Amino acid sequence: MKGLKQKFQERVYVSQVPESYGKPPPGLRRQMFDIIFEADTPAGRRFDIALVFAILLSILVVVLDSVPGLHREYGDILNVLEWSFTTLFSLEYLARVICVQRPWRYISGFYGVIDLLAVLPTYFSLLVPGSSYLLDIRILRLLRVFRIFKLTLYIEEYTRLGEALSASRRKIMVFLSVVLMAILILGTVMYVVEGPENGYTSIPVAMYWATVTMTTVGYGDITPHTHLGKAIASFMMLLGWGILAVPTGIVTAELSARRGDRRSGPARTGPARPAAVPRFCAQCGSGGHEAGSRFCKDCGAQL
Amino acid sequence: MKGLKQKFQERVYVSQVPESYGKPPPGLRRQMFDIIFEADTPAGRRFDIALVFAILLSILVVVLDSVPGLHREYGDILNVLEWSFTTLFSLEYLARVICVQRPWRYISGFYGVIDLLAVLPTYFSLLVPGSSYLLDIRILRLLRVFRIFKLTLYIEEYTRLGEALSASRRKIMVFLSVVLMAILILGTVMYVVEGPENGYTSIPVAMYWATVTMTTVGYGDITPHTHLGKAIASFMMLLGWGILAVPTGIVTAELSARRGDRRSGPARTGPARPAAVPRFCAQCGSGGHEAGSRFCKDCGAQL
Amino acid sequence: MKGLKQKFQERVYVSQVPESYGKPPPGLRRQMFDIIFEADTPAGRRFDIALVFAILLSILVVVLDSVPGLHREYGDILNVLEWSFTTLFSLEYLARVICVQRPWRYISGFYGVIDLLAVLPTYFSLLVPGSSYLLDIRILRLLRVFRIFKLTLYIEEYTRLGEALSASRRKIMVFLSVVLMAILILGTVMYVVEGPENGYTSIPVAMYWATVTMTTVGYGDITPHTHLGKAIASFMMLLGWGILAVPTGIVTAELSARRGDRRSGPARTGPARPAAVPRFCAQCGSGGHEAGSRFCKDCGAQL
Amino acid sequence: MKGLKQKFQERVYVSQVPESYGKPPPGLRRQMFDIIFEADTPAGRRFDIALVFAILLSILVVVLDSVPGLHREYGDILNVLEWSFTTLFSLEYLARVICVQRPWRYISGFYGVIDLLAVLPTYFSLLVPGSSYLLDIRILRLLRVFRIFKLTLYIEEYTRLGEALSASRRKIMVFLSVVLMAILILGTVMYVVEGPENGYTSIPVAMYWATVTMTTVGYGDITPHTHLGKAIASFMMLLGWGILAVPTGIVTAELSARRGDRRSGPARTGPARPAAVPRFCAQCGSGGHEAGSRFCKDCGAQL
Repeated sequence: MKGLKQKFQERVYVSQVPESYGKPPPGLRRQMFDIIFEADTPAGRRFDIALVFAILLSILVVVLDSVPGLHREYGDILNVLEWSFTTLFSLEYLARVICVQRPWRYISGFYGVIDLLAVLPTYFSLLVPGSSYLLDIRILRLLRVFRIFKLTLYIEEYTRLGEALSASRRKIMVFLSVVLMAILILGTVMYVVEGPENGYTSIPVAMYWATVTMTTVGYGDITPHTHLGKAIASFMMLLGWGILAVPTGIVTAELSARRGDRRSGPARTGPARPAAVPRFCAQCGSGGHEAGSRFCKDCGAQL
Repeated sequence: MKGLKQKFQERVYVSQVPESYGKPPPGLRRQMFDIIFEADTPAGRRFDIALVFAILLSILVVVLDSVPGLHREYGDILNVLEWSFTTLFSLEYLARVICVQRPWRYISGFYGVIDLLAVLPTYFSLLVPGSSYLLDIRILRLLRVFRIFKLTLYIEEYTRLGEALSASRRKIMVFLSVVLMAILILGTVMYVVEGPENGYTSIPVAMYWATVTMTTVGYGDITPHTHLGKAIASFMMLLGWGILAVPTGIVTAELSARRGDRRSGPARTGPARPAAVPRFCAQCGSGGHEAGSRFCKDCGAQL
Repeated sequence: MKGLKQKFQERVYVSQVPESYGKPPPGLRRQMFDIIFEADTPAGRRFDIALVFAILLSILVVVLDSVPGLHREYGDILNVLEWSFTTLFSLEYLARVICVQRPWRYISGFYGVIDLLAVLPTYFSLLVPGSSYLLDIRILRLLRVFRIFKLTLYIEEYTRLGEALSASRRKIMVFLSVVLMAILILGTVMYVVEGPENGYTSIPVAMYWATVTMTTVGYGDITPHTHLGKAIASFMMLLGWGILAVPTGIVTAELSARRGDRRSGPARTGPARPAAVPRFCAQCGSGGHEAGSRFCKDCGAQL
Repeated sequence: MKGLKQKFQERVYVSQVPESYGKPPPGLRRQMFDIIFEADTPAGRRFDIALVFAILLSILVVVLDSVPGLHREYGDILNVLEWSFTTLFSLEYLARVICVQRPWRYISGFYGVIDLLAVLPTYFSLLVPGSSYLLDIRILRLLRVFRIFKLTLYIEEYTRLGEALSASRRKIMVFLSVVLMAILILGTVMYVVEGPENGYTSIPVAMYWATVTMTTVGYGDITPHTHLGKAIASFMMLLGWGILAVPTGIVTAELSARRGDRRSGPARTGPARPAAVPRFCAQCGSGGHEAGSRFCKDCGAQL
């Protein structure tokens, strides 16, 4: 398990570990590297913050452009803004590629792909001009929204929650499989009991209804009409409503246990301390070190 | 962090700490001060209880007046009651301003603004007569309902829950951002898959639908019609339904830990004990002392 | 607090403690008393089980009789059954009154009133004959359903859950008041933003919608139409969905703590052991003793 | 209680314990037995994996065949696939019956019945030809979906969750009965208040609506129309929404306690370790041993 977990972390962190990209020798490229990839200098931090704002604003432009009214009135301005952001992100992408020693590692990594997907769609839209190709444009908008994944690089608190969930994953898989079995079985039961004349036109549709019901969403687009159907539906609702207690218990037990383990550790809930800890260990390249750490938690080398 | 938390507490408590308003020298004003701002004398407590009742009744008047049938039949009586309460609260406001040494501190503080908003709208309604200005009247009603914030001053149990939530706030922020990202991404996916002809007219509308679905509210005003849309929607429902486990786990872990820390402390869950503890420390002005405390928990001075 | 809790327990238990009704001297009445009120003899237990079945069947009769189709076809049989049960319960009631020394204590107690409400409606229906008085009959059916409260006397596990909830009650009250404030404020906001032309006809109706939304029920009978309304509604949904974490955390923390306290105590989750423990302490009359207890937990006297 | 629990486990495990079926003497039958019933040889594991895939694919065939469009276009292919799987499962069933010493034990056990139900319906469909018998075909499809129960034999993590739930079962029963009482009482109240003219046509229908509301599903097919009805409904929504906290607390407390008990035990959340542990103890036949166990946890014999 530790092997799997470490491999997974490495795959994500390779994208995050500039050392694995290769730090260039001191010079202009090194200056760019320190600003773009590291966050332990004032310039580095300002770059990060500015980039976050740019990402959020560019997403807002995509979202607003999808509203027909706003598209008609402000379409030109939004288009100009979109191209500005695309240019900005393209320059940033080129800067990243230029200032590392091994650019291919970045380009083929997780964040390299995301950064590319953040700019390509706008260029594609040049190739498919005309608002008649609405679906193309709609798909392109979707890709631009993926810029938001660039943001996750900046937030370390995800790591803790991610670890808690990851540790519970076997229990969660078991729970999910029970839920899916229930949706399959009970959906089929309702398909048999109610039938297509009452809206349950096939087993997949009945399974969709079962999901809508057991997760207590309850759209009302399909509802049981027979008395037996209503009785079975009531049972399903109580079941779905109650078994929500299970994953909650799993996650809570996991979080409570972790809390106990680290009661004496560094305070978890303080604001980000501007401690001068490099984000990545120079020795092994692993990230996610606690603020105030003096030694790398994975290889023991001094940070 | 302790600095931020202390500053926040101070900002709220400055409104609550009569000492910071300036206690007047003994006399009539001092008597009024003790009744209105303090609650450690019988008269003070009776004033508080009467004021709570007045606030609740005045809100009831505003609520009932919004019902068209009741407005037609009892509009006059309700209007009279509304003016009575407004007069009462105006007198109370003036009394508060008069009996403190530094009135501007009260007027510009949180509760001073609330108290003013509680009475101004009724006066504004004199300036905009006529039921044709329905929106104005509707907005004025909204402001009067803010009187309810005056009530929070009287309940100390909020502090503990507030502290528990406040300590978990970083985890909650992370969780919220994950949810918002999911709503954005999945909403955009459904906008692409279903399209305006199925009700998903723009990305904001699709995000509204995604929120309705992932929080399991499920109005049914917009529902997926394509098979792929229904499949994605089912995934979103299970996701939303399941990730409710996360904040629950966060809050529970926090509350459980606090429980352990204070097992030997004063009983938390008893009824309010009528101990003669001044609500605010004479030395430092901090509030929120446990019933039965002998010394101020912030400065150590005797209460 | 212990005073309040003890008084409350006494009020409920007075109805449950036959000793407080007055145990009759040995004889026929004493035999009836032991069968009806006590459960530590085989006859007493069989009486209890038979009574539970009778109660459940009589409720089923009331429920089935409300279905128009069944009422038409089987109305006579259901009526005969209803009168049989009513006669049975009347005889049981009379038996209870006869075999205690202080009948008035039973008649005026909680369970005495319930037992009376279980039989009176059927007699009332003689006084209001004719199916034109549908509302009367509907109300009478409601009262008969209250028989189910007689069942709670027989299940002791309620006590533990009740205690856990009772200990958390101050926190629950605080939470509830926050929720009600949110429903009031946000409901009024939506009333102002959407207005009667979109379904929000008055503040009470808007509060009903706010409750439907924040509890994630989401009927869809009223939905926001304006963009601002949809945005505010989305915020409310996330708020309601998330703050469910709070009472869950409260109750879980309470239950977890109790579990720790009684780890070494008697096993909680075993089946009911047929230990010969009188249900009520002869000395002080308190009930709810654990199976296997040798001494009364409230007064220390030997059981 | 331990007696009941052990009996229950035995009933399920008898189906799972090949030793109870009787291991045949070494030979061809013994080879088949080791492949089919045991999973500690590579051949045995490959058989298991192949069988799981076959089960999932056969269910997919049943699900797809229920979609009218797919049934029309691909009905023949799906029919051929269905018969292939049926033949496969029939051969597997016969293999199982042949290679054990005491076949009747397998045939009459839980998994024997499931395996039979997995194949019989397709044979029955020969007896009721013609798509006019839609309901028959729909019921037959339901039975084939039960194949999924064969899968549970393969996953051991269920056991732990099952134990946690089983230990809390008395608390869960109490909670369920409170919920059912509330649904009955409040459903009847709404039947009285709203009446058939507003959709509440009988007490069972009102109870269905009460379930829909208290589990926060909220279809909207029946909604309250009177003011009093809306008020009662709001109360019910808050009640249902809030009391979800209770079972969550129960399960979480149970899971947290178990975590504490086994902190020093074998790691719970690792991937399946391919340790050569026979699935069932040769001495007593009990299953569910942890990977890496050297001795049977029920009888102490060496594995």
